[in-house]
Amino acid sequence: MQLERMVNKTIVREGVFDANDALAQMNRERFDRAGTFVVNMMSSPGAGKTSILERTLERLRGRLRLGILEGDVQTTLDADRLERFGVPIAQVNTDPGFGGECHLDANMVRFGLAGLPLDDIDTLIIENVGNLVCPAEFKVGEDMRVMVFSVTEGEDKPLKYPLMFRSVELVLVNKIDLLPHLEVDLAQFERNLDAVNPGVERIFMSAHAGQGVEKWCEWLLARQRKMAAAP
Amino acid sequence: MQLERMVNKTIVREGVFDANDALAQMNRERFDRAGTFVVNMMSSPGAGKTSILERTLERLRGRLRLGILEGDVQTTLDADRLERFGVPIAQVNTDPGFGGECHLDANMVRFGLAGLPLDDIDTLIIENVGNLVCPAEFKVGEDMRVMVFSVTEGEDKPLKYPLMFRSVELVLVNKIDLLPHLEVDLAQFERNLDAVNPGVERIFMSAHAGQGVEKWCEWLLARQRKMAAAP
Repeated sequence: MQLERMVNKTIVREGVFDANDALAQMNRERFDRAGTFVVNMMSSPGAGKTSILERTLERLRGRLRLGILEGDVQTTLDADRLERFGVPIAQVNTDPGFGGECHLDANMVRFGLAGLPLDDIDTLIIENVGNLVCPAEFKVGEDMRVMVFSVTEGEDKPLKYPLMFRSVELVLVNKIDLLPHLEVDLAQFERNLDAVNPGVERIFMSAHAGQGVEKWCEWLLARQRKMAAAP
Repeated sequence: MQLERMVNKTIVREGVFDANDALAQMNRERFDRAGTFVVNMMSSPGAGKTSILERTLERLRGRLRLGILEGDVQTTLDADRLERFGVPIAQVNTDPGFGGECHLDANMVRFGLAGLPLDDIDTLIIENVGNLVCPAEFKVGEDMRVMVFSVTEGEDKPLKYPLMFRSVELVLVNKIDLLPHLEVDLAQFERNLDAVNPGVERIFMSAHAGQGVEKWCEWLLARQRKMAAAP
């Protein structure tokens, strides 16, 4: 019963992922033509993605032409928070019906790109739906994947959601200002992280208190410089 | 294009939900025969479900025959944490393949029930996969749905994940010991919660510091008494 079920599921899902990969490739070609570096930012709900983007836009305004693609099940709350920075923002709501999709896929991103002047954007940050499982399964045409992990979630999370932690090039370990009030074991978190994604780059930060924000902005600028220098 | 996509998706998903509802009904009948009250507990990753269960088992041992069904993408870490209480625990891993399903469905719960002595369990708590979207879409045969919301996630979450907040009978508002260190607006959270699920019952608690744990245990005991008194 279990095996049969899994086999059927595998067949169906292969079809879904083939279509998604083809659309992700179309997005990729658009990004390449525009010379836009694209980050797919993922996390649990409430880990701090939007707060980090606020700090990023404050700091990089005038140094890097940023654009934002906001993915949410419902509302434009995150886009509203970022609007005051005057950068191009597109909102994609993953939709009504059955309560909304739990991730962005390549087609949703393609749809959102229609609202963005890609030629005027050096770095596009895609803020995915808050979820530690499904977003990691869908390529959207990004150059790099970054996840935000809030230390309030506990040190065991890399082991419990390994695909997410394994699929990223950088982990922003956020809310470290709360560490004195938590029982979380940060050294054990790092061991768990290395168990699923050995040596993956990590930046300890607090969007609230400001630690690490400059380092993250430097990371973005360095990627941009590297891309600009490529033939 | 968008409409066509949605129509296709709707058709496929209706099939999935029909099958799930039929299996949920089978689970429901098993629970009724055993006289077991069943709670489906949901939340974001790291909101504190397992910590709340630890406090619950400590307090209700000897007063209520509890059983636990643990749903995780991978690992048995949560079941391992609860094992020392000596209550029946079944583990369902939602599994490999494409990184694991992001929710428990009725068939996974049915599978897990094979490992539980339902006749000896008054109240079964199903700890769902950490995710604020998909678990709310799948009935598993439960009597009641409870969600754990961590105040660290921010006051906007009911608006951003309305199906989850709307689908539950009780919200455990956890980690309130951290409130002095956060910028979260709890009154606004309550207004947002009431906007999507007017007047839904809520218990403010801290599994870490102990506030509200007794109230939650009383809630469970009262449901059990009510069920036992029913004809």
